[in-house]
Amino acid sequence: MSALMPSVETRPLANAIRFLAIDAIVRAGEGHQGVPLGMAEIATALFTQHMKFNPADPQWPDRDRFVLSNGHGSMLLYALLHLTGYAQFGIDQIRSFREMGSHCEGHPEFNTAAGIEVTTGPLGQGIANAFGMAVAEAYLNAKFGDAIVNHHTYAFVGDGCLQEGVGQEMISLAGHLKLGKLILCWDDNRITDDGSTTLSISEDVSERFRVAGWHVIEVDGHDLDALATALAEAKRDPRPSMLACRTVIARGIARLQGQRGGHSGKLFEADANAARNELDWPHTPFEIPRDVLDEWRAAGRRSEREYLAWHERLAALPDDARAEFERIQEGRLPEGWQRVLEDYKKQAIEKGEGQAGIMISAEINDLLAPLPERMVGCADLEAPTSHKRSLHAFTAEDRSGAYVHCGVREHVMGSMANGMAAHGGVIPLAVTYLAFADYERPAMRMAALMGLPVKFVFSHDSIGVGKNGPTHQPVEILASLRAMPNMRVFRPADAVEAAECWALAYEHRSGPSTMVFARQTLPLVRTRSSADNLCARGGYVLAEAEGGKRAVTLLATGSEVVLAVAARERLQQEGIPTAVVSLPCWELFDEQDDAYRRAVLGVDTVRVGVEAAVRFGWDRYLGEHSGFVGMTGFGASGPAEALYEHFGITPAHIVAEAKRHL
Amino acid sequence: MSALMPSVETRPLANAIRFLAIDAIVRAGEGHQGVPLGMAEIATALFTQHMKFNPADPQWPDRDRFVLSNGHGSMLLYALLHLTGYAQFGIDQIRSFREMGSHCEGHPEFNTAAGIEVTTGPLGQGIANAFGMAVAEAYLNAKFGDAIVNHHTYAFVGDGCLQEGVGQEMISLAGHLKLGKLILCWDDNRITDDGSTTLSISEDVSERFRVAGWHVIEVDGHDLDALATALAEAKRDPRPSMLACRTVIARGIARLQGQRGGHSGKLFEADANAARNELDWPHTPFEIPRDVLDEWRAAGRRSEREYLAWHERLAALPDDARAEFERIQEGRLPEGWQRVLEDYKKQAIEKGEGQAGIMISAEINDLLAPLPERMVGCADLEAPTSHKRSLHAFTAEDRSGAYVHCGVREHVMGSMANGMAAHGGVIPLAVTYLAFADYERPAMRMAALMGLPVKFVFSHDSIGVGKNGPTHQPVEILASLRAMPNMRVFRPADAVEAAECWALAYEHRSGPSTMVFARQTLPLVRTRSSADNLCARGGYVLAEAEGGKRAVTLLATGSEVVLAVAARERLQQEGIPTAVVSLPCWELFDEQDDAYRRAVLGVDTVRVGVEAAVRFGWDRYLGEHSGFVGMTGFGASGPAEALYEHFGITPAHIVAEAKRHL
Repeated sequence: MSALMPSVETRPLANAIRFLAIDAIVRAGEGHQGVPLGMAEIATALFTQHMKFNPADPQWPDRDRFVLSNGHGSMLLYALLHLTGYAQFGIDQIRSFREMGSHCEGHPEFNTAAGIEVTTGPLGQGIANAFGMAVAEAYLNAKFGDAIVNHHTYAFVGDGCLQEGVGQEMISLAGHLKLGKLILCWDDNRITDDGSTTLSISEDVSERFRVAGWHVIEVDGHDLDALATALAEAKRDPRPSMLACRTVIARGIARLQGQRGGHSGKLFEADANAARNELDWPHTPFEIPRDVLDEWRAAGRRSEREYLAWHERLAALPDDARAEFERIQEGRLPEGWQRVLEDYKKQAIEKGEGQAGIMISAEINDLLAPLPERMVGCADLEAPTSHKRSLHAFTAEDRSGAYVHCGVREHVMGSMANGMAAHGGVIPLAVTYLAFADYERPAMRMAALMGLPVKFVFSHDSIGVGKNGPTHQPVEILASLRAMPNMRVFRPADAVEAAECWALAYEHRSGPSTMVFARQTLPLVRTRSSADNLCARGGYVLAEAEGGKRAVTLLATGSEVVLAVAARERLQQEGIPTAVVSLPCWELFDEQDDAYRRAVLGVDTVRVGVEAAVRFGWDRYLGEHSGFVGMTGFGASGPAEALYEHFGITPAHIVAEAKRHL
Repeated sequence: MSALMPSVETRPLANAIRFLAIDAIVRAGEGHQGVPLGMAEIATALFTQHMKFNPADPQWPDRDRFVLSNGHGSMLLYALLHLTGYAQFGIDQIRSFREMGSHCEGHPEFNTAAGIEVTTGPLGQGIANAFGMAVAEAYLNAKFGDAIVNHHTYAFVGDGCLQEGVGQEMISLAGHLKLGKLILCWDDNRITDDGSTTLSISEDVSERFRVAGWHVIEVDGHDLDALATALAEAKRDPRPSMLACRTVIARGIARLQGQRGGHSGKLFEADANAARNELDWPHTPFEIPRDVLDEWRAAGRRSEREYLAWHERLAALPDDARAEFERIQEGRLPEGWQRVLEDYKKQAIEKGEGQAGIMISAEINDLLAPLPERMVGCADLEAPTSHKRSLHAFTAEDRSGAYVHCGVREHVMGSMANGMAAHGGVIPLAVTYLAFADYERPAMRMAALMGLPVKFVFSHDSIGVGKNGPTHQPVEILASLRAMPNMRVFRPADAVEAAECWALAYEHRSGPSTMVFARQTLPLVRTRSSADNLCARGGYVLAEAEGGKRAVTLLATGSEVVLAVAARERLQQEGIPTAVVSLPCWELFDEQDDAYRRAVLGVDTVRVGVEAAVRFGWDRYLGEHSGFVGMTGFGASGPAEALYEHFGITPAHIVAEAKRHL
């Protein structure tokens, strides 16, 4: 084959993708033609001969999943959705590519109802999501059997996704877990945005996959038959498969194909016209000839029989099994699931003892471990975070395990969790230290953007970490997570708040929750029982001022609430009526009405924020003449108690700060 | 060799490391013995036979660099520094391991004066820093020749560092760049915190390195002679080398060695006593027998002759070459370096034209390109960020290039930059889109923690990105970076501010600077010339209220300053005296005295913050009855102008918001 133009005839089905992409990109004035033009044959082979899907029911639980990890090539996906007959992707949508309000956005945005499995764009996320989908599939397959859950996950991937660390983590872990139903198609076009891939990589990418235990097939990415055969082989192999598809970027645009400009160099009408001649496509822009469209629509109906058979099998399940499957698919928690949390609250109050923050979370989650939809990933911190307990490991040999040993790979852990949540049927938790949240953060942002109900769980949340020193002591990370739209950050003060916050997190379906726990002991501060979930409003008066009008409001979260309580006692003793407000979840508090917020925060009182973290973000609750007791920089290495003393996060200092502003 | 106890005799030199670690960890009550006990022979072979260093002058520019990437094993490093005779690591320091104020902190903290090359702890960072050091060495070697710059970079690395994505990015890129003087020693102990490495990895790690073009030597990690030979071989090979050292974790502690608990399971005095018997070490805690210490101290003096010879060679350089070398070593910029920036400011005002934000930065940096100490890394966005220009690429064949094509690997780009800065002699820039800052963030945190003068440069800083959609539109990232201690975040409004901010960034030596630029055009707002650097105070009155006492203060940054200026015009026309404050750097503004800040922010005026980002963090400048015009959630896909309109970030909306609060 020649480097730029393989010998196999390009076919009209693939060219339908090409011209939808070309026409849409020319019309929009920008876009990335490299992928849709380079991967048109691969997409055609997959969607017309292998993918199990039903455009009439995009959310069919047992559909194959398709992820366009090189999401900048979004027109490839939109073209496929249009051609195979997804309702939301009529030709008018294609014509409105990149316009405000179009389904055809610059990058694909998560919308399973419309056929988009996951938001992609930041490179590497998509293949890591696909990996998470394959984990979810394997786990649910073990629970419900081949008759109900048995599908593949396909991902298209470019060089960038494989250069990214998260992609490399995925390759290693997916190979280790032998996820045989995960199939990647690599767009091996040897071009990135900067030009030749030789600028930044020399390794044999196929070999790198093989080292990690993958099944690799090298194939001409423009040869439909070879691609179809390779996909069949990939499906048969018990290992995860990577099709290294040798392609020509932007194939069909003579001026750009095989070159750097092929990636996203501006396309002009003249390019489109030249391509029409070159590829024998005598049709007007956005016109797909009837026979070609018919063939594509037939491809969209290819799985109808399988679809009906699957529904028959589902209907044939015993009632309780079917109900259970439907429940977890819909993401509903079982009737009365909260009871264990309520009991836990009561018992915590009865015992009256403190406990290490992260161990409280572990205990609570262990009580919920019987929920079959829960899966826990952890980045090599099983012992210090303790969220395994009665779970067993999900391994290559045992897919029934709900605990994934992710290794020291926080990033793919988070992206895997996103993929699980997007897949459905699984509620994923991802557990590590808060100091390592930054490693996971790109995945957390995607969860927030997609509105996925992932639970990001963090331990060791402050200088309370102690002697491990500043690298391991978050000071700015709470603020950085609170800044993220659609992310709820919970930092409970004790076992009672922890149970309440976990109840809220499991109930929250339209976005991720970040659960932040101390390593050190959280003494009980919620000593009075309450049937209500007080954390549901995000913040509440834990202890009201006594002996007069409230003069001081101490606002605190997590491990510092107990310090505020101690400070309040001293202030009260000095005759200064002082309230303590616990603020376990700012986002929920900010959703409350003005009257509630003002009542909690206190009008015309001195306010002092207390948190073993930086002040950044706190001012919204403090007002101009109020104080803050917390960190002003990074931590230090020393015993936790000494550090609290050293940085002045003590009742005495809180008292002084309050008085300074009275 | 048996799996747990290799046949080669353990020697007293290595055992001196072991017992310092054991005694310090027992005394501290916690610590990670796995590394110092498992890597004692490797460290001994390296420091007594290969490392070029001088404890009497820890900052000797041509010393070999040593990075303990598995930084939790910090006692290994402290033991080495003590034994070889670094002044700051007397035995009292070793005895105070993990106490407040000790140099022997939980993890090594950057302190080149004391012999610690870089802060390590978050896994993967250290080896990526080492890679950056090797890049800096190669670059300076090309500039100054073997006589002046010719040293190796060694890094010790555990399984975790190699599982992390940033580690994988490093392997790929360092192999590509053929950094032959980079030598890793892998502690192949087959144990991580969770237990056996087989829980989370199956791949042949040595093969993975070979695929990436590394030279790999497999060696018994407890065989001193074999290790010394392997290190010699590594130094000879033109490829980067990885010594896969088969080791027994926590070797010497019978109860824990070779096992999960070896990593950091609690050590007791009984363990120490048992080890003393087992290893024939009849000395009291913290006692190193004279002959052993003498031998170690002699090792510390091994490079003395080389040290003197190097100084002779330096002295023999022509005056200007020596002065230049000394200048860049000290991090001093050349006399008058700012003149080009001042000229640029003047010309920008004369031209009076707007320009794309990131192109302004590119232009400015191109003017500074002649500074030999500048190196620019970019994550596969050469064209849209444009910071290459007159630079040429640093490659395996040409080390004189100052531009590193990092590939789509933001994380290692950032960590590489940290390693370059820690190495010295190089001022590193790392360039990508702001939306991908999260990928780089763990490195940025380390730069802030270490106080390294890295310049993190970002383009495409808001919804101004337009049609690429919300994945590519930062809304929360400015806030998340401003939350970071010791990080200066600059967001200039136009070419004049950009020149001023770059001047401040290059002058700032005690911490990193984040430079944030719009993709879209920044019209000129600083139309009047000023000799002073107005950005130096972080915020200033760009346009004072006219026609009466200031009633409204509009506070804005970057691309929104021009909107505030337009809004001010309308408010002034309506008779409302309005000032515009530009706030290009919050951190610098916060350092100003109260009087200045109050004068700028305006007392008893309505304040409206304007930024195409979330409000988080802005309240510190606004007060309770003030407004904000910006984003409340993620962006959308559409033309930039349409998005600004859609999200209400317009002069009209600013005017309305100001009036609402009047």
